[in-house]
Amino acid sequence: MGHGDKLLKFAEELNIGPDEILDFSSNINPLPPEGILKFFRDNLDYLKFYPESSYADVKSVIAETFEIPAGNVMLGNGSIELIRYFFFVLKPSKVMIPYPTFTEFERYAKGINSEILHVNERDIYSGEFISQLDEVDACVICNPNNPTGKIVPHGIIEEAVEEAEKRGCVLLIDMAYSDFVEGIKNPPESESTFITRTLTKILGVPGLRAGYGFAPSRITERIERIRDPWNINSLAVMALKHFVPELEKIKKDVCGKLRNLRMELSARLNSIDGFKALESETHYFLVRHEIMGVIGERLKERKILIRPCDDFRGLDNSYARISVRKREDNIRLYTELNSII
Amino acid sequence: MGHGDKLLKFAEELNIGPDEILDFSSNINPLPPEGILKFFRDNLDYLKFYPESSYADVKSVIAETFEIPAGNVMLGNGSIELIRYFFFVLKPSKVMIPYPTFTEFERYAKGINSEILHVNERDIYSGEFISQLDEVDACVICNPNNPTGKIVPHGIIEEAVEEAEKRGCVLLIDMAYSDFVEGIKNPPESESTFITRTLTKILGVPGLRAGYGFAPSRITERIERIRDPWNINSLAVMALKHFVPELEKIKKDVCGKLRNLRMELSARLNSIDGFKALESETHYFLVRHEIMGVIGERLKERKILIRPCDDFRGLDNSYARISVRKREDNIRLYTELNSII
Repeated sequence: MGHGDKLLKFAEELNIGPDEILDFSSNINPLPPEGILKFFRDNLDYLKFYPESSYADVKSVIAETFEIPAGNVMLGNGSIELIRYFFFVLKPSKVMIPYPTFTEFERYAKGINSEILHVNERDIYSGEFISQLDEVDACVICNPNNPTGKIVPHGIIEEAVEEAEKRGCVLLIDMAYSDFVEGIKNPPESESTFITRTLTKILGVPGLRAGYGFAPSRITERIERIRDPWNINSLAVMALKHFVPELEKIKKDVCGKLRNLRMELSARLNSIDGFKALESETHYFLVRHEIMGVIGERLKERKILIRPCDDFRGLDNSYARISVRKREDNIRLYTELNSII
Repeated sequence: MGHGDKLLKFAEELNIGPDEILDFSSNINPLPPEGILKFFRDNLDYLKFYPESSYADVKSVIAETFEIPAGNVMLGNGSIELIRYFFFVLKPSKVMIPYPTFTEFERYAKGINSEILHVNERDIYSGEFISQLDEVDACVICNPNNPTGKIVPHGIIEEAVEEAEKRGCVLLIDMAYSDFVEGIKNPPESESTFITRTLTKILGVPGLRAGYGFAPSRITERIERIRDPWNINSLAVMALKHFVPELEKIKKDVCGKLRNLRMELSARLNSIDGFKALESETHYFLVRHEIMGVIGERLKERKILIRPCDDFRGLDNSYARISVRKREDNIRLYTELNSII
């Protein structure tokens, strides 16, 4: 199973500290809020206590921030847990999944023997998929999409939500990366949308595991009946309560900077012979080169990780995903690539 | 849903710090290893990294400690996740569950519409349940049992494992509290046992969420296919790798002390008019009094929590569960009870 989670294993193989590796393979925020680890240091004491298993207080903070009823809020041990519920609780018999996209959607769909209607990512942005919603019980939209970093125009989302509601189809809108795009709007309220988000990517602490999401109460109630008690650890609870209300401020601080870093790195990469950086609206993007597999191996020898994309449906080993880092790191990547190719 | 997880909610209601409350309601170790929070402080940096989703390194440490193949090791976001798998992956159509016991077994059994054969806890200790194993596909043994603190003689476990294997019945042996009893043995290796354990109770950090367990590879492989990637947070990973090999040492340090504290507190409580402390082999035990509900409320007014037991099948509101704390705290409980009754 391919994921952008190979850093620690790689560090262990080399017997070096994880900070000695330049990791472009994980889509996390390279410019997290200052003092983020201090927040956890100050709250370590909460590990001594069970989180209260209804999580009513966390849900009410999130509900207030997003101006929705607390009964529509879901929490997960990472948003991946909520994505699992979408499949394992709703059990759609046929689901539309675009390609390429986050590989776990297809894995869970197969886990419940759901028939999959594969559509090209382009059909999502163009809105063409909407006419096919009556062929399925469920449809997945990753917005911004992983690994391409593209976003769906809000008008298309609105139209899809309206059509899905009419046709009794449920939309999973995975907004795990929405905090990295300024001005991306929440989908309209609906009885047919299941939205997942995560706190840890923007905070730069994916090891924490703190996902949340929104769904109609008829769905959240079903999830409550089967979810594990204490599924959100105590540090994640503290982080959700403290940082969800701060999200807009954090976004404002970081989105523009990341955009500039991405544009600068893309331009540099495009100047390398045979190297093509694809367009993106986020801090990560696809790159293409005929011998990307070899390039990836050469980078590894230089303690640099990028994300191979051969496990993404619709992509192959000529693609890789790169998530921008701080300027000096990006320059190092570009320089090393230049020396390799 | 009743659980020993009301401390934080109660502290918030009173607008005081959680440490200002004397919590006898959670079954966690009141004498955790020294410097335990320092360990987490020193490892906070790992929150910045995704845990490697196969968790191969953690599994191999646990496998080595318990001298079993790594392919038989399971990890969970708390042992409760593994208990869910027992029900949701194996889907027994009929399961034997003793009473009283941890309430989540019954909840999950109902979640998959499993028929439940309720048997008295006494039938487990006596071994009488073994003759009924051919009536069910699965059987749950909580050893030591929660909330009674009783343990099943090893000979009975051996016999049950042998019979279960013959009859194609799977045993869930929940050993969440086994680290609190010296000399409790692991069940014999078998194709029919599913064992769950947890690290966080003995370390006194239930907010961390770190469960593990053992099952035959035909079962662990099925679980691997559907579990969420990154289900164990990065701090829990570090704790499992560091403390599982230390378990025997930690146990040796703490079991005798807790036993003495429990015996002393039990004796004191039994000297209170109408108060009865039931026998137990662990650091927690049931207490009984005609007006336990009122007593619990009076203790709450004094910022002391005990665990009401009216939600345990087979018990009622005359029972409560008490988990020992340090000596001075136990004396305070006894003194307050004396002034209440």
